[in-house]
Amino acid sequence: MAAARQLILSGPFAYLIRIFKAEGFTMASKSKIAAAVLGASGYTGADLIRLAALHPGIEIKALIAKSHAGQPLAKVFPHLGVLGLPDLVTSEEVDWEGIDVAFCGLPHATAHQEIAKLPESVKVVDMSADFRLRDPDTYTQWYGGAHGATDLLGQAVYGLTEHYRDCIKDARIVACPGCYPTAILLAMLPLVKRKQIDAGAIIVDAKSGVTGAGRALKQNTLFAEAGEGLSPYGIGAHRHIPELEQEIGQAADETVRVNFTPHLAPMARGELCTCYVALKDDATVDSLRDALRDAYKDAPFIQLLEDGSIPATQNVRGSNYCQIAVFADRLEGRAIVVAAIDNLVKGSAGQALQNFNLMFGFDETEGLKQLPLFP
Amino acid sequence: MAAARQLILSGPFAYLIRIFKAEGFTMASKSKIAAAVLGASGYTGADLIRLAALHPGIEIKALIAKSHAGQPLAKVFPHLGVLGLPDLVTSEEVDWEGIDVAFCGLPHATAHQEIAKLPESVKVVDMSADFRLRDPDTYTQWYGGAHGATDLLGQAVYGLTEHYRDCIKDARIVACPGCYPTAILLAMLPLVKRKQIDAGAIIVDAKSGVTGAGRALKQNTLFAEAGEGLSPYGIGAHRHIPELEQEIGQAADETVRVNFTPHLAPMARGELCTCYVALKDDATVDSLRDALRDAYKDAPFIQLLEDGSIPATQNVRGSNYCQIAVFADRLEGRAIVVAAIDNLVKGSAGQALQNFNLMFGFDETEGLKQLPLFP
Amino acid sequence: MAAARQLILSGPFAYLIRIFKAEGFTMASKSKIAAAVLGASGYTGADLIRLAALHPGIEIKALIAKSHAGQPLAKVFPHLGVLGLPDLVTSEEVDWEGIDVAFCGLPHATAHQEIAKLPESVKVVDMSADFRLRDPDTYTQWYGGAHGATDLLGQAVYGLTEHYRDCIKDARIVACPGCYPTAILLAMLPLVKRKQIDAGAIIVDAKSGVTGAGRALKQNTLFAEAGEGLSPYGIGAHRHIPELEQEIGQAADETVRVNFTPHLAPMARGELCTCYVALKDDATVDSLRDALRDAYKDAPFIQLLEDGSIPATQNVRGSNYCQIAVFADRLEGRAIVVAAIDNLVKGSAGQALQNFNLMFGFDETEGLKQLPLFP
Amino acid sequence: MAAARQLILSGPFAYLIRIFKAEGFTMASKSKIAAAVLGASGYTGADLIRLAALHPGIEIKALIAKSHAGQPLAKVFPHLGVLGLPDLVTSEEVDWEGIDVAFCGLPHATAHQEIAKLPESVKVVDMSADFRLRDPDTYTQWYGGAHGATDLLGQAVYGLTEHYRDCIKDARIVACPGCYPTAILLAMLPLVKRKQIDAGAIIVDAKSGVTGAGRALKQNTLFAEAGEGLSPYGIGAHRHIPELEQEIGQAADETVRVNFTPHLAPMARGELCTCYVALKDDATVDSLRDALRDAYKDAPFIQLLEDGSIPATQNVRGSNYCQIAVFADRLEGRAIVVAAIDNLVKGSAGQALQNFNLMFGFDETEGLKQLPLFP
Repeated sequence: MAAARQLILSGPFAYLIRIFKAEGFTMASKSKIAAAVLGASGYTGADLIRLAALHPGIEIKALIAKSHAGQPLAKVFPHLGVLGLPDLVTSEEVDWEGIDVAFCGLPHATAHQEIAKLPESVKVVDMSADFRLRDPDTYTQWYGGAHGATDLLGQAVYGLTEHYRDCIKDARIVACPGCYPTAILLAMLPLVKRKQIDAGAIIVDAKSGVTGAGRALKQNTLFAEAGEGLSPYGIGAHRHIPELEQEIGQAADETVRVNFTPHLAPMARGELCTCYVALKDDATVDSLRDALRDAYKDAPFIQLLEDGSIPATQNVRGSNYCQIAVFADRLEGRAIVVAAIDNLVKGSAGQALQNFNLMFGFDETEGLKQLPLFP
Repeated sequence: MAAARQLILSGPFAYLIRIFKAEGFTMASKSKIAAAVLGASGYTGADLIRLAALHPGIEIKALIAKSHAGQPLAKVFPHLGVLGLPDLVTSEEVDWEGIDVAFCGLPHATAHQEIAKLPESVKVVDMSADFRLRDPDTYTQWYGGAHGATDLLGQAVYGLTEHYRDCIKDARIVACPGCYPTAILLAMLPLVKRKQIDAGAIIVDAKSGVTGAGRALKQNTLFAEAGEGLSPYGIGAHRHIPELEQEIGQAADETVRVNFTPHLAPMARGELCTCYVALKDDATVDSLRDALRDAYKDAPFIQLLEDGSIPATQNVRGSNYCQIAVFADRLEGRAIVVAAIDNLVKGSAGQALQNFNLMFGFDETEGLKQLPLFP
Repeated sequence: MAAARQLILSGPFAYLIRIFKAEGFTMASKSKIAAAVLGASGYTGADLIRLAALHPGIEIKALIAKSHAGQPLAKVFPHLGVLGLPDLVTSEEVDWEGIDVAFCGLPHATAHQEIAKLPESVKVVDMSADFRLRDPDTYTQWYGGAHGATDLLGQAVYGLTEHYRDCIKDARIVACPGCYPTAILLAMLPLVKRKQIDAGAIIVDAKSGVTGAGRALKQNTLFAEAGEGLSPYGIGAHRHIPELEQEIGQAADETVRVNFTPHLAPMARGELCTCYVALKDDATVDSLRDALRDAYKDAPFIQLLEDGSIPATQNVRGSNYCQIAVFADRLEGRAIVVAAIDNLVKGSAGQALQNFNLMFGFDETEGLKQLPLFP
Repeated sequence: MAAARQLILSGPFAYLIRIFKAEGFTMASKSKIAAAVLGASGYTGADLIRLAALHPGIEIKALIAKSHAGQPLAKVFPHLGVLGLPDLVTSEEVDWEGIDVAFCGLPHATAHQEIAKLPESVKVVDMSADFRLRDPDTYTQWYGGAHGATDLLGQAVYGLTEHYRDCIKDARIVACPGCYPTAILLAMLPLVKRKQIDAGAIIVDAKSGVTGAGRALKQNTLFAEAGEGLSPYGIGAHRHIPELEQEIGQAADETVRVNFTPHLAPMARGELCTCYVALKDDATVDSLRDALRDAYKDAPFIQLLEDGSIPATQNVRGSNYCQIAVFADRLEGRAIVVAAIDNLVKGSAGQALQNFNLMFGFDETEGLKQLPLFP
């Protein structure tokens, strides 16, 4: 059969294949990539499974969740029971030689410990915080412990897809950005790079649904406590700050500080970042829009709203899309840039899959075409 | 090109195609079916578009919404703006000769008036109530006006997919069941048909998310009124009752009345029907499960939960799945059967697409494989 | 001063007092009752504090919460921080001789252990399940452990206020009913007592907000899991069943079984019970209404809706009111009775305070006049 | 009787009354103030009724709602049905000579028209926007029509209670601030007055529950549209801006512009304002806290959180409290001030009642002691 496949995919059949495609045959020519999911019992793990299970080029071979090992997936996530995937296991039970890629949805610290054990042959798409910061000292400062796999930091690329496509393609480890940095950097980087705004005076008021806090049991994410209420948290101290300062600083070529104030909003998914920026020189709302339009002209998941439409998390729920828009400020010399994503998709599992697509030669949108679920 | 297509699809290439498929080529051999959506500005219309737009065999050619004609879809449903579909139009503006199928998400009464205007060549998948009742007098009694297209009733089939597959395949008009009847009949019909339960003593306590009430502006579906609260409505008088009584009566071969009490629950999507039934003769919880298992052994979207797991709307949100389970009652000789669906998908647009698949020769699951969105 | 008080309250001043009252002086003549709250860190404890703190006849002297001892109340419940109440303590730290009444919001089992330690001089309003069941064997069967304070059962009265006023007045321990039994029994008892319905064929489909599950950390009450979804739980096995069967059985003077199926609804507060009943003999919807009207003609918190209005949890949120209405069923010889309460108020802390009022000679509505919070 | 009352309230009985009070008699000596509510079918009207109905010094004599005239209150607001208040009427049906005070919950424009018709003897507590702006041209500019009652502007006082107590006491018309300005000005005015912050560089990111949009039927406040989603609205163009600029400008004694960006959050009640401010000179987080502490040392409803606790709308829901806290910013020379209120209470009906108390000589907290409803 393999010989027949060679025959078909090359030489005289190439023309035929083009005809087939033109006539409505879709090619999914790659043999499937064998994937494992580390942290399959958390929300990012679940959303990765939800998306990857329908990706034509992925075969999910192992679901790893230490504390749930031995349980069927349907027990941990009933909505995924229809998939018939293998039961949850420990990492030790996995035959890693047969795995091409590991998606990692573990908490920080645990993530790099588990990733460090994997054979070099396994590529890693990490949704944790462990490989986002290039400076291990910064990691220690913000995450409260020494980084235990500093030797791997050199193999890691910051996985903000739209800004690091080329590096991602060849990386062994892709560190997907935090959910907040994804939305904020998508909105800010083109403006900083093109010197449209003061990189050292960015104020971000962010609002997130409660899945951003993960599935761990906490009083403040109980329905009765988080519902019908809203409050800021981690003011001036949220762990996504060093990522923001690393990336914005690099784009501006200077050391910067960012005001980042997250709020917990009574919704499961969704993240909205309202960025208050000081315009540079003769920058205007229009020139900011230009910068964003140029930056994302080939980005299939970035929707720039230029007709006065306002980004809303409802408009991207369950999808990999990011909506961005620029608005005039009443304060002179300032503007407001708003970005909305689904924190579990573009902010985590979706972007992970987008990066996977680049790493393994698939179309960037493969497995990610699902439209937002509204209402 | 058409000649080449013929050549490829027949004769010596048949073997080749089988190889291709075995090797990972997916066939989508049909040229696309041209579709129009009537009622494109409502929730069922939007969900139909959400699903149909990604169906490999459908091309959406016209979006019809009288009162929004001239507007871009993104204005009415920003989450669908990425699709680049044509602007909304009136039915009169559509070239119906070029349309193969019309999905109708109009309100009752308007629906049959608009459908009656379509050429015979257009097949219709109707999500309204207008062609569900075989008896026009019953229609008048419950919907408060004479049926204006009784001549078309003979062309219509009740589109409860799992129970009417053969009729649906050849029908011109498929009348998709109401959301409640979908869940209830899927749970009850196999039990009634196999004489496991008393068809005339069924009590259904149903709970629905607010999208069941549509997008029309009503005080009781405002966030501030429907949120954080729950109440029954339309007690003993809901318009889904005659459908239930028609179908259960037919399955039981007797005239029946059903206690159907719907409740409005503070969620956007989802429908849970708790059915309290009297067992017949020597029926047991196990024999009820047997009846359901036999009925749905080849039904890709029906999930029978037999291990004590409990159906929940969270487990099917945004998907075409239906979860059903049977439980023992404390009252002797009785049982409780619970069914959960997403009212807009399996209860409306998803089932419509499932019926479309049967009508046009696609796999029943085409375009409907999306997994539930949880959380 | 005490002598002056005697003088004023008796003899020649009696007339004067009557004038004062007629002229707008309100008498709150009792010196304040010293209260302690056991379980002050749970939701029922918090709601009890919320209400009792404004009761003119109560002085909250001690807040007991073992695992939070030493913390200020504002730490555990920021919304109660304005009260300036004493910090949380252990039961051992309380000078029980100075306490007149203990409100107990502890979980079952813990409750009776703590109550058993209190001096006889302390009256107890218990919101736990521990003194609701008169038969300790039934307790053991449903709550999974022997009752450790059976000697106190004789001092306990079932605290369904509207049905046990006289006993409550003189009881040392009042066992407030569970939230579900409160709503269900208020709706059913008058009908059973007057032989309007078949006491052995009651089917109750109940829906509750998530506070019904308490403040303990559970995965299914996380916002992301409970939100936007609905499902039954504890089918045929909920611990409120024996209470229902005890009280309905006693009213009917026979042993009964009840079908009670609770559902978890995506709201914080509120409980709606839809009761499906079989009419006896020549009972009708009207005669059921008569029975309820007679039973509650002097009950300040029971609202019978007789004009077709439908009970809704929104209408009673945060208040001690209970809405009840009777509706015709399509099935002959049956009716539907719907009751709505706030599970934390009438279903727990409010009813506790109502019982307290009876026990200590206050007006039944004292401290409970707050209107529902809508929206 | 009136003579007896005179006798009792004066002369030799004064001492007796003091004893009575010391002994637990509460005096409610004022005869009741006759109140009318204009706009009784809206949310602010309803919340005013909810609170005023339990105020010992108020008798609600008329409920005015033009389009609902003739209906019982229970029809429009079932949760208020227990009050037994008079049916809704038109303003023309009211005997205004017997009314002491009118609470006005009408929309802007309609409000001043209706208020202009009232006799001078009626004091007005207006919750609309019509008398907030001292400059009628600013009104026209923002509200899109000429002000039709400019002659009354001189009688009106801006009703931000904590800052205008003295004027409010003697005013005929008190214009209660908008919900957003209430929270923002309570947080900002003391800082501006004491020159702690740059009055011309205030950036406010505000989040409100959907009741802020009123009860009018709008698509974006439907449960299915507003639920589980978040977005900004009215960016740079919200009608509360001129109020903010009027009051902050006056406090700073300069013309200022304010960046005010409101967001619609998926909750019914609650408003959280996150204010990003530039510190002046040697101002610090501590000096800001000092300014607020001094300003509100006698304000019963202002809760300054100084221990790192974070304001949350859950903590004030349903109550008249306002939580304020100051936090350090990562950006040098800046700080973050957060304020939380219930938009319908402190942001509207509660503050109205607080102003009423001042105007009619009641204790400022009368009728407003209800604690927050949490969860």
